[in-house]
Amino acid sequence: MKIIVVGATGTIGSAVVNLLGKSHELIRVAHSSGQYRVDLGLKDSIRTLFETVGRFDAVVSTAGQARFGALAELSDEDYRVGLDNKLMGQVNLVRVGREFINDGGSFTLTSGVLAQHPMVGSTAISMVNAGLEGFVRAAALELPRWNIRVNVVSPVWVSETLKKLGRDPGQGMPADQVAKAYLESVESRRNGEVLAVKDFA
Amino acid sequence: MKIIVVGATGTIGSAVVNLLGKSHELIRVAHSSGQYRVDLGLKDSIRTLFETVGRFDAVVSTAGQARFGALAELSDEDYRVGLDNKLMGQVNLVRVGREFINDGGSFTLTSGVLAQHPMVGSTAISMVNAGLEGFVRAAALELPRWNIRVNVVSPVWVSETLKKLGRDPGQGMPADQVAKAYLESVESRRNGEVLAVKDFA
Repeated sequence: MKIIVVGATGTIGSAVVNLLGKSHELIRVAHSSGQYRVDLGLKDSIRTLFETVGRFDAVVSTAGQARFGALAELSDEDYRVGLDNKLMGQVNLVRVGREFINDGGSFTLTSGVLAQHPMVGSTAISMVNAGLEGFVRAAALELPRWNIRVNVVSPVWVSETLKKLGRDPGQGMPADQVAKAYLESVESRRNGEVLAVKDFA
Repeated sequence: MKIIVVGATGTIGSAVVNLLGKSHELIRVAHSSGQYRVDLGLKDSIRTLFETVGRFDAVVSTAGQARFGALAELSDEDYRVGLDNKLMGQVNLVRVGREFINDGGSFTLTSGVLAQHPMVGSTAISMVNAGLEGFVRAAALELPRWNIRVNVVSPVWVSETLKKLGRDPGQGMPADQVAKAYLESVESRRNGEVLAVKDFA
């Protein structure tokens, strides 16, 4: 398959590239480096990406910004970034990408464990992640008319990220294990599912 | 308790006013009629409301616009209305109202069954409703430091609404039954819950 990986240079994205690259042709996309660039916060940038790449079989997104911070301190802009970028950016990958994707294709987005299991400081991120899951469940009812699927992977904390933060990597899951959930979404016939990474590691 | 009911003139809101009004002092707020007005899409309008009303013990919101329509037909603006109004409007009731609410107070927001059980045409609404639930779960970890609670009620289809749409009212729940979940949220010590109305009818 020809697969567009958005967020290809990130911690999870790099692991996804390694795993999916073994058996698929990958188009690697990132915000500020990589083979192609996209700004998820700008729908025109997303359209330009698809027009440049042409037809493809799958989009895997491990990208999207959302901001962490105390409820009393998060600004309107902090909430806005999450809504425009991680939420509507990934929603727009589906809305626009639908016009370019091949028959039988799939979209795989990324939410996160904070959707269902929040922590202090995660109001904006939990909102965005849960919103993505709601969108995917609903979009999965409409996409099959074009023989397209959509799922969302909900990663836990990644060991490599915890290590960078000076925390115990053992509390998370290695990125190469997390990547398996994305492979499952792409290669299976699953649709409308929130894939918990522990089920595929 | 002094309770601000936002969306007081709507189908569910009117039933909430009837039920909560039996034992509480209500401030009835709506978009275009009622005792006080608010535009949920404008944070300044929300702040003006709280500054006008002064201290209170609870906010119950049964308000917020979000648009129904096929994925292929919903516009950017259609998604934007749901994010700005039903989602961030209700989030902003908490963010701004927190500064004005009395010790021991609570916020009760409204999502909807489409968050978890979508239908064709509900991508924008399912996204918004699920996002609200994610926000509430996370905010519930931070509000107790001020002795404040937050919950979200997830109504099913209301019989009165189905009747207006020419559909079978028996497929829904009467608004006066739905209202009981709001009373439970206000009078209990529940926090961070998504209240399914069937559990309280």
